[in-house]
Amino acid sequence: MILKGKKVTLRAVEEEDLDMLRELSNDPEFEKMIIGWSFPISKKDEAEWFAKQKNGLDNLRYTIETEADGAVGMIGLRDIDWKNGEATGGGMRIARKEIRTRGLATDAWMTLMRYAFEELRLNRVNGSALVYNAASIKVCERVGFKKEGVKREAVYKNGKYHDMIYYGCLRSDYEALIAENHYWDEEPSK
Amino acid sequence: MILKGKKVTLRAVEEEDLDMLRELSNDPEFEKMIIGWSFPISKKDEAEWFAKQKNGLDNLRYTIETEADGAVGMIGLRDIDWKNGEATGGGMRIARKEIRTRGLATDAWMTLMRYAFEELRLNRVNGSALVYNAASIKVCERVGFKKEGVKREAVYKNGKYHDMIYYGCLRSDYEALIAENHYWDEEPSK
Amino acid sequence: MILKGKKVTLRAVEEEDLDMLRELSNDPEFEKMIIGWSFPISKKDEAEWFAKQKNGLDNLRYTIETEADGAVGMIGLRDIDWKNGEATGGGMRIARKEIRTRGLATDAWMTLMRYAFEELRLNRVNGSALVYNAASIKVCERVGFKKEGVKREAVYKNGKYHDMIYYGCLRSDYEALIAENHYWDEEPSK
Amino acid sequence: MILKGKKVTLRAVEEEDLDMLRELSNDPEFEKMIIGWSFPISKKDEAEWFAKQKNGLDNLRYTIETEADGAVGMIGLRDIDWKNGEATGGGMRIARKEIRTRGLATDAWMTLMRYAFEELRLNRVNGSALVYNAASIKVCERVGFKKEGVKREAVYKNGKYHDMIYYGCLRSDYEALIAENHYWDEEPSK
Amino acid sequence: MILKGKKVTLRAVEEEDLDMLRELSNDPEFEKMIIGWSFPISKKDEAEWFAKQKNGLDNLRYTIETEADGAVGMIGLRDIDWKNGEATGGGMRIARKEIRTRGLATDAWMTLMRYAFEELRLNRVNGSALVYNAASIKVCERVGFKKEGVKREAVYKNGKYHDMIYYGCLRSDYEALIAENHYWDEEPSK
Amino acid sequence: MILKGKKVTLRAVEEEDLDMLRELSNDPEFEKMIIGWSFPISKKDEAEWFAKQKNGLDNLRYTIETEADGAVGMIGLRDIDWKNGEATGGGMRIARKEIRTRGLATDAWMTLMRYAFEELRLNRVNGSALVYNAASIKVCERVGFKKEGVKREAVYKNGKYHDMIYYGCLRSDYEALIAENHYWDEEPSK
Repeated sequence: MILKGKKVTLRAVEEEDLDMLRELSNDPEFEKMIIGWSFPISKKDEAEWFAKQKNGLDNLRYTIETEADGAVGMIGLRDIDWKNGEATGGGMRIARKEIRTRGLATDAWMTLMRYAFEELRLNRVNGSALVYNAASIKVCERVGFKKEGVKREAVYKNGKYHDMIYYGCLRSDYEALIAENHYWDEEPSK
Repeated sequence: MILKGKKVTLRAVEEEDLDMLRELSNDPEFEKMIIGWSFPISKKDEAEWFAKQKNGLDNLRYTIETEADGAVGMIGLRDIDWKNGEATGGGMRIARKEIRTRGLATDAWMTLMRYAFEELRLNRVNGSALVYNAASIKVCERVGFKKEGVKREAVYKNGKYHDMIYYGCLRSDYEALIAENHYWDEEPSK
Repeated sequence: MILKGKKVTLRAVEEEDLDMLRELSNDPEFEKMIIGWSFPISKKDEAEWFAKQKNGLDNLRYTIETEADGAVGMIGLRDIDWKNGEATGGGMRIARKEIRTRGLATDAWMTLMRYAFEELRLNRVNGSALVYNAASIKVCERVGFKKEGVKREAVYKNGKYHDMIYYGCLRSDYEALIAENHYWDEEPSK
Repeated sequence: MILKGKKVTLRAVEEEDLDMLRELSNDPEFEKMIIGWSFPISKKDEAEWFAKQKNGLDNLRYTIETEADGAVGMIGLRDIDWKNGEATGGGMRIARKEIRTRGLATDAWMTLMRYAFEELRLNRVNGSALVYNAASIKVCERVGFKKEGVKREAVYKNGKYHDMIYYGCLRSDYEALIAENHYWDEEPSK
Repeated sequence: MILKGKKVTLRAVEEEDLDMLRELSNDPEFEKMIIGWSFPISKKDEAEWFAKQKNGLDNLRYTIETEADGAVGMIGLRDIDWKNGEATGGGMRIARKEIRTRGLATDAWMTLMRYAFEELRLNRVNGSALVYNAASIKVCERVGFKKEGVKREAVYKNGKYHDMIYYGCLRSDYEALIAENHYWDEEPSK
Repeated sequence: MILKGKKVTLRAVEEEDLDMLRELSNDPEFEKMIIGWSFPISKKDEAEWFAKQKNGLDNLRYTIETEADGAVGMIGLRDIDWKNGEATGGGMRIARKEIRTRGLATDAWMTLMRYAFEELRLNRVNGSALVYNAASIKVCERVGFKKEGVKREAVYKNGKYHDMIYYGCLRSDYEALIAENHYWDEEPSK
């Protein structure tokens, strides 16, 4: 099913989204801020990736969409471990800079958290952020992640090793958050 | 063969129906009321599903169609157990809200029941409904299902476990029903 | 890993167990008491089944073993539904009649229940028994299953349809049981 | 190549080791102390695993051997990330209890660390331990791992969630360690 | 990701580039100056090459592009040896003669060097040039390569054997170069 | 065909040689002196390698054998470039230490050189040696290789980068050598 937040909708990745996604993957600005790394991606590479990608028991991938702007980014939940009740959230990217101040990233995360805890019966969502990525850290902390440690020299970028923050959001963290900030209280018709 | 009811026709799923089906699968309203769950489904996922889906000895799947509206929903019979003479009915969904009051769901079920008992030589059709899904319960009881028990904490949705009603409709239940309500008496030319 | 109960050990099915299993499957006495049904099984059929069977995320199958008797039966957990936290226990069979009064079946079930709730993080285990199978009903009720309904005319055997009992054991049922009967208190070194 | 420590040799996994490995995987004692989990493993399952397992650019797996005892355990390095220069050490298991006090685990880890930093050109090795696994924690800290955080409720075992310690050993940690404890000074003819 | 230099952008090879590449490969002028050799290449040959070519852990291939001219050439990094931290740069070709004096080749190399050392964590990039290819030698030496030897009679062209220069650029060579020429100081918004 | 030297015979690699080869590959003494690197190799890995390995247009691999000792080592010619008339000799290893002083390595190389120049019509054979491998350097220089340069920091071993010598032996070098040392004059019946 699609997931409805207050500002965004998370829906399946469609072929129409590939141009936006390829631009995201090739943008060195993003590369600097994220933990993964990527080869240059051609249209052909991406078409092959799309042909193979499949939402399933292990990994879920969503396009973030707003009513006004259409597809604006992506988010996902990977490495779902059903036995221990945990998964890793990530791959959150909002494509256009001018709309990054509107709370879309926060809303996408909150929507994913609700899905993970209230539908998938998970107990824990993992996250991470490079120590210098202030924007990402701010969003992580706003959506219920607690800092659990620092992975030293985790990522090599720009000629040196950088530390990465380990985050975790337990179901109880999420519940305490929404009890406090009433995020879903003024929820639109879901 | 196609199955003709009084208001609807049940026919094979065709490629043209995929848009309607994908909308049904992605609609969170439906998700809340049904027992299954679904990943977000892209056009590609659905085309692949369609390419592999096959009516056969085990599972049958129908598109519900009316003369006036074309394809309006779907229904099916799965896990057919020929030795014990039973199968599970389900996957009943009517797509457009505005036509849900016209008895189409009841007619689709009655048509499927007749097929199960009078053509497939089955003795029993299983059904189920979430305890809070009043509309589904009403339809189940109208088409001959008897409540046989309650499966406690059967489904996890919206942050908690929900009970589910076990239904069964025996051939004798179905025959008693039509003897009483004369459902097929004013039947059109089949 | 192998699962250790108080009297039995549950371990992977090995090629050496196939003779015992084939006898179980071909015994008409058993056939009368169980819900499944089986074609006559040749050594070749069974070798093929064994070559394909695989413990995995969906299904787990164990040989029941005692120190004194070696392999004496089998039990399993199938259709594990991680999202809703439920699975169906079953396939419990003890091969030799003379040892059926020693509590081995109960111990095998208790060991499987503990694994399902305390290791697999499940919330519910489903069970079932034919209404006339007193021995099976007794074991089901002794290991925490609650009767949730009766599936009428569920199984065709011996020229007629027979009713089957729907059972469910919630994690809370299991916990109440061991709080009361102290089953694991005098547990051997696990 | 094989890796020579002071007490142990790390060599390729051979078919002869499979019995020892299967026993390790099936032992519930181990299961309680480690982070992974395992289905019951039959001889057939293991033979299939062995047929597919391959040391390569991503994952390396070694049998731990001593001259006096032959194969006594296993250790490995997985998820090698060449770009960032990190990998995850783990799967360390010593099979026989009576030889666990002889420093074999420490020597196996030191040998693996040396290989990771001095041959594979890595910068970081990840490790982890359940908070209640005192023996594993002691070994981790003895071989250069620094505690970097605590992953809350990381693993579900024995009916509840358990915290896990995140460890990291940088090349500089390893070099400081051997500068201090002179581990390799009295090294035998390598 | 795409790599941004001061004058050029290195991006994935796209189907649109194949005409330019085929012309480069078939041009006897080029053939004289480069070390590789090529059969005559048909559109079909090239389409097949493109269908199979994949950027990955071993080889990376980029189209060189300028804002004013679009795709003007190609460059790549092949035989990446992660364990020893080295790779071979090459396949540098600028298509149109009239733009070869504008420093595009130098900029493409500098951009690739920066990526190799600062993102891929490599320690060494190999290069080579035919002894009579003055333009190539000039570029090699401008971008940090040190001459390490001469491979005698390495290449047979035009009826005789020709010597080839072995080049190597260490990370320390690159760092010394940019410390001296401040290449990236006036870098545009990356 | 098999190649006959004065002391050794070079013949195809046979299944019987695999034990000797695996010992060579796993020996850390060798690893220290050679340029390649290797994962630990199990019997299964080697059997798979053998099943796939094939002498062909690109690569030739020989077992070195003496009449008295049987199989004692291996040697090969790889990356044969027919157009430019060059190939890379290597993989020379003599297994047993006690026989390394008898000129077997020199004879194997001389036999391979003669084959490369007199049978394969090549013009050049490449070689290499780590700067600290005195034994290998001595053999290289004895069989006609000329030092052409030094590849700085070519190989990472034992915690640091090591330089490697580039060698080349032209057909003219080989011919000058045998004119001078009359190596093949007292040749046995070839």
